[in-house]
Amino acid sequence: MTRTEIWVINPNTARAMTENIGRCARAVAAPSTVVTAVNPAMGPESIESHYDEALSVPGLLAEIAAGEVAGADGYVIACFGDPGLDAARELASGPVVGIAEAAMHAATLVGRSFSVVTTLARTTGRAWDLAARYGFAGACRGVHACDIPVLELDDPSSDARKVVAALCAETVERDGCDSIVLGCAGMASFCADVSRAVGVPVIDGVAVATKLVESLVSLGLRTSTRGEFAPPGPKRYTGLLRDFSV
Amino acid sequence: MTRTEIWVINPNTARAMTENIGRCARAVAAPSTVVTAVNPAMGPESIESHYDEALSVPGLLAEIAAGEVAGADGYVIACFGDPGLDAARELASGPVVGIAEAAMHAATLVGRSFSVVTTLARTTGRAWDLAARYGFAGACRGVHACDIPVLELDDPSSDARKVVAALCAETVERDGCDSIVLGCAGMASFCADVSRAVGVPVIDGVAVATKLVESLVSLGLRTSTRGEFAPPGPKRYTGLLRDFSV
Amino acid sequence: MTRTEIWVINPNTARAMTENIGRCARAVAAPSTVVTAVNPAMGPESIESHYDEALSVPGLLAEIAAGEVAGADGYVIACFGDPGLDAARELASGPVVGIAEAAMHAATLVGRSFSVVTTLARTTGRAWDLAARYGFAGACRGVHACDIPVLELDDPSSDARKVVAALCAETVERDGCDSIVLGCAGMASFCADVSRAVGVPVIDGVAVATKLVESLVSLGLRTSTRGEFAPPGPKRYTGLLRDFSV
Amino acid sequence: MTRTEIWVINPNTARAMTENIGRCARAVAAPSTVVTAVNPAMGPESIESHYDEALSVPGLLAEIAAGEVAGADGYVIACFGDPGLDAARELASGPVVGIAEAAMHAATLVGRSFSVVTTLARTTGRAWDLAARYGFAGACRGVHACDIPVLELDDPSSDARKVVAALCAETVERDGCDSIVLGCAGMASFCADVSRAVGVPVIDGVAVATKLVESLVSLGLRTSTRGEFAPPGPKRYTGLLRDFSV
Amino acid sequence: MTRTEIWVINPNTARAMTENIGRCARAVAAPSTVVTAVNPAMGPESIESHYDEALSVPGLLAEIAAGEVAGADGYVIACFGDPGLDAARELASGPVVGIAEAAMHAATLVGRSFSVVTTLARTTGRAWDLAARYGFAGACRGVHACDIPVLELDDPSSDARKVVAALCAETVERDGCDSIVLGCAGMASFCADVSRAVGVPVIDGVAVATKLVESLVSLGLRTSTRGEFAPPGPKRYTGLLRDFSV
Amino acid sequence: MTRTEIWVINPNTARAMTENIGRCARAVAAPSTVVTAVNPAMGPESIESHYDEALSVPGLLAEIAAGEVAGADGYVIACFGDPGLDAARELASGPVVGIAEAAMHAATLVGRSFSVVTTLARTTGRAWDLAARYGFAGACRGVHACDIPVLELDDPSSDARKVVAALCAETVERDGCDSIVLGCAGMASFCADVSRAVGVPVIDGVAVATKLVESLVSLGLRTSTRGEFAPPGPKRYTGLLRDFSV
Repeated sequence: MTRTEIWVINPNTARAMTENIGRCARAVAAPSTVVTAVNPAMGPESIESHYDEALSVPGLLAEIAAGEVAGADGYVIACFGDPGLDAARELASGPVVGIAEAAMHAATLVGRSFSVVTTLARTTGRAWDLAARYGFAGACRGVHACDIPVLELDDPSSDARKVVAALCAETVERDGCDSIVLGCAGMASFCADVSRAVGVPVIDGVAVATKLVESLVSLGLRTSTRGEFAPPGPKRYTGLLRDFSV
Repeated sequence: MTRTEIWVINPNTARAMTENIGRCARAVAAPSTVVTAVNPAMGPESIESHYDEALSVPGLLAEIAAGEVAGADGYVIACFGDPGLDAARELASGPVVGIAEAAMHAATLVGRSFSVVTTLARTTGRAWDLAARYGFAGACRGVHACDIPVLELDDPSSDARKVVAALCAETVERDGCDSIVLGCAGMASFCADVSRAVGVPVIDGVAVATKLVESLVSLGLRTSTRGEFAPPGPKRYTGLLRDFSV
Repeated sequence: MTRTEIWVINPNTARAMTENIGRCARAVAAPSTVVTAVNPAMGPESIESHYDEALSVPGLLAEIAAGEVAGADGYVIACFGDPGLDAARELASGPVVGIAEAAMHAATLVGRSFSVVTTLARTTGRAWDLAARYGFAGACRGVHACDIPVLELDDPSSDARKVVAALCAETVERDGCDSIVLGCAGMASFCADVSRAVGVPVIDGVAVATKLVESLVSLGLRTSTRGEFAPPGPKRYTGLLRDFSV
Repeated sequence: MTRTEIWVINPNTARAMTENIGRCARAVAAPSTVVTAVNPAMGPESIESHYDEALSVPGLLAEIAAGEVAGADGYVIACFGDPGLDAARELASGPVVGIAEAAMHAATLVGRSFSVVTTLARTTGRAWDLAARYGFAGACRGVHACDIPVLELDDPSSDARKVVAALCAETVERDGCDSIVLGCAGMASFCADVSRAVGVPVIDGVAVATKLVESLVSLGLRTSTRGEFAPPGPKRYTGLLRDFSV
Repeated sequence: MTRTEIWVINPNTARAMTENIGRCARAVAAPSTVVTAVNPAMGPESIESHYDEALSVPGLLAEIAAGEVAGADGYVIACFGDPGLDAARELASGPVVGIAEAAMHAATLVGRSFSVVTTLARTTGRAWDLAARYGFAGACRGVHACDIPVLELDDPSSDARKVVAALCAETVERDGCDSIVLGCAGMASFCADVSRAVGVPVIDGVAVATKLVESLVSLGLRTSTRGEFAPPGPKRYTGLLRDFSV
Repeated sequence: MTRTEIWVINPNTARAMTENIGRCARAVAAPSTVVTAVNPAMGPESIESHYDEALSVPGLLAEIAAGEVAGADGYVIACFGDPGLDAARELASGPVVGIAEAAMHAATLVGRSFSVVTTLARTTGRAWDLAARYGFAGACRGVHACDIPVLELDDPSSDARKVVAALCAETVERDGCDSIVLGCAGMASFCADVSRAVGVPVIDGVAVATKLVESLVSLGLRTSTRGEFAPPGPKRYTGLLRDFSV
């Protein structure tokens, strides 16, 4: 069986979170899949605003470029805002899947509707934008924030897991949704526990995206290069970003 | 590695087509996946109208029921109209994915837009209905018919493969779409050839649905039983359909 | 004045309900209209899931076929899921109208918005699907379940009528809707009572569909046979459903 | 059988057109229906712009007020822009139906899609607005102008009937629509001829609206007075329009 | 600097309200802009129903015609229903902007979402219609009525300002909207006070529309006369409205 | 009259283009407005892919930060992809308007529909995304590419101006649109010429955005800081982007 190399990119610089995400991806990957979990050497330590998200993209793209050199077969963007997804698709020769995208796709395969449980209230707008862009605005019943900063999710001394589980349960009742989508890569390790607690499918995008990339690779499907997503043409970049010249 | 049993159900009664579909599913399935390709003992020999489609559903549901007894882990509905999908989800304990659904999901992961190339013009309305239902009406640029009846696709003496490839190429030009979705399970074996010819991803729903079911099973995701898709309650069925009593 | 023969088909096998539906249709039909109320000899005794609905369609189509032989001018499908509507339109030479469709059309003629009051919570998804399909998703403010099984609606010893009226009144307050659509053929006989109670138009699809079919017949309008809804071509059917061969 | 009094209001001042419209309505009305065809004593002689349409409304509302005094049971607004429909619904105690609305409703009952054939190109925007408002934007495949002024349609020396029939035939081919909606009350008398020529249902809103009002009256359904469409409260009107004070 | 002449038309006949509106427009106009605030000599003294709105249009159009004679460069329609906007655009050679339109445009430039606070509940439907027409249905979180009649807003002895401010604050909490749109020209003078009270942008359409018309005029942008909005052709008008002949 | 300081930011590094953009903004600005035209010191020299666009954002945000220090009252983002708009709104205390956004808003004020004429075909997807996001997908009739690279637009020896004008004229005919939106800041100086050639309003977003920012500033309207667009919280940034720490 051919070995498939998937790079799972955490677009923030929090190394502990990257490792956690890597573990979650490896837990579901096929035996023939090698998961490489990386994060950029530059940018925000967590992504909690449009500002953070925009500034995570150069680092993310640097990782994609590194993956191309290393021969990666496909990529997961492991942040629920799916930052830089379009740009990444231009750069990568293999498929690229975002975790919000992946989770929402899976949710519509196991029920009519889903709700998202995420970190900070200020990010809910982005989740709605993504649902609309992917065609799932009608399936998305609600986006709810637990008001826990991203980096606290990992903190063993915090009660994040409990708070998230409680909000998921409350959301199922209030929204009448068929499933819950976890709205942060930092919640990936909560998935099994929360699932048991709420009685509906609970979906972690890291795991789903890993399987989707695996599937696309095995099917020989990669981003169309016909027009919009063709590799970017040669271009002079200057200043701080001069190394991004193509 | 756990063995995954996927039943790929061709909802018409054409045995040769079922075998062809089974081959296509097996070609992409993981080593640990067992594909069982079946078709109903009752109903239409091909599905080319709403009438055919509606009448394919009892046989399809009988196969799902048989799969449940046999311990199937998940199901593919291998007809591009995704007949009986909602009912099948109520009946099956594992995930159920239709091939139109699967192909459209994959198409939106490899580009902004897709067009569908299908058999008869009278079925294009159904394809649009499904695109709308799944959230992909905005991504679907066109649905085009090659005017070849379903059962002729398989006929080695027909030039179906050539006609379909030509229509796919023409569609890419006319619609400016990023990928092509093959709109009939009977075209599954054309996928690689057509792909080479048209220069954009060509997507066969049988293959994609097989990978999606595999993925959902490995992630422990199954249809939500919270409300709409809970198993149907006990009910008296009479007459010809008396054996469908739950 | 020409006699118009309308077949009102209850797609479940509950004969008492069929008679009730027939009475409601006759109460509004023109003097020159003959209402024939029928139900299939096969299938579920009530329709409360996607499974039931899918399996009601063969029997429904058999009744349409019988109506064609008997010279029916048009048909009402008297179940709020509008089961088999597309297939029935292919088979029938005259117009076919579903009661959900009919009620929603009427509701948009007497106000900006409506809400649906239906039987079981698991059927609300189907009502939303139909509203979307018919173009009325924006006009539909809510779909609410009274949690009374279909066959209990008719039971004189049940307080169904009271429960439904109370839910309608509550819905008008909560949703601010201009009218109420009764979401089950089994509620047809409640219409006048509930109407008096809630102070907004209360719409029973059986009555409206009967008038719409009458109107279409008198206008000489029937389903377009240009493409999608042309009569199904000849096709071999096998097994249990062999008699459905065209 | 109770007598039903329907006022069919042509909102322009062209008396010949009013009589023609009255004939078309009477041709389909039930024996127990009395059709009164009227037009305002003020306003534009034909409606071919937003300006004309806006200025047709006071005269139309004066006719509704007269109908109320005369005991009309319901109203048809016989101009394809459905001018003043919301205001008329506030004023009338019985149902009010516009002919664009009526025709589009009927079209969606006899097929998936329709196209509109209308008079002047500058009115096509209004037709699209109405399709969107009624929920039928997805069903409307096109709106095409024959470039014949409204009052020329009636002129026996013109070849309007031929031109309209030819445009309808061309539209069916180009748009692949299931039916044609005639986009002007002045085309009502063309309906049967054009129908024969094009092989799909051709729908005249005057006839359909007459049947819909008849149906709503016989069902006891009238505009909801719960909120938006309650009768307008007392209000001082001054100047030229002083007689419109309520 | 060229002088710009903007006519701000209050479509009701309440002169005090017109003066108030004029003051609000002048407060934001550029030094080189001359604001002429007018109201019709005919029609309703306030606009609180579809009936009032329809009957405000002839007077409004008469003011546009007067403005054209006087050499106005552009127009504001200062009623939140944007009555007669399409007709006014046909008649005016310069740009015409409605205050609902203007306020909603501005709201989408300062946040993702807005809610409308308006006068009577029966007008909320019209606000939703406008939001949909302008493309802002997705951005509009709610439309809420304070149940104060239009002419009471101006009454110094009323507590209208307080009631409106309280409803705005409540709406921000309930809807989670980024801004508030004031839904009546009669609230224009409340804008600054309410803004201070609620902590989000509060938007008065009179002020915004004045700036938009100023901007369009200075950019040389006027309504396209290519088709739909070309000047209305010559037409005979009769009766009360004979003076509207073009 | 208060002085208003508007920073017009060209997000690419082409200084000549920045100067051209500055001239176009100054040509329409009010006497009391000071336009500062800047471009980043880092990033791509032109923006012609998602990759370029993503990598233009850090430089753009650095300019916003510099503008805040310098006391800018508002900002124009002068690239038709509106890069970094959400992030810029979080960072800026005054209003921020993108030129695609501005042009589309203006287009809907002067007609029902517009089409976009842009540079490279691969950017048309982004234009459609923006139209959808801003609520104008229904108003946008088409997006057409002239296949001229951004930096060639400025080249006096190229026939860019002629090619663009010809494509605009062709687009008006083909799409039947009411106006043309120029889809690149590099076309700003073509606006007057093209306008004369095509007979419908031709809209340059640089000019419109300048007037919109001026208007918002004079109205005291700035981005809502209630939730999503509140200033980003303090956050550690590392590596190349360490200076973006808040």
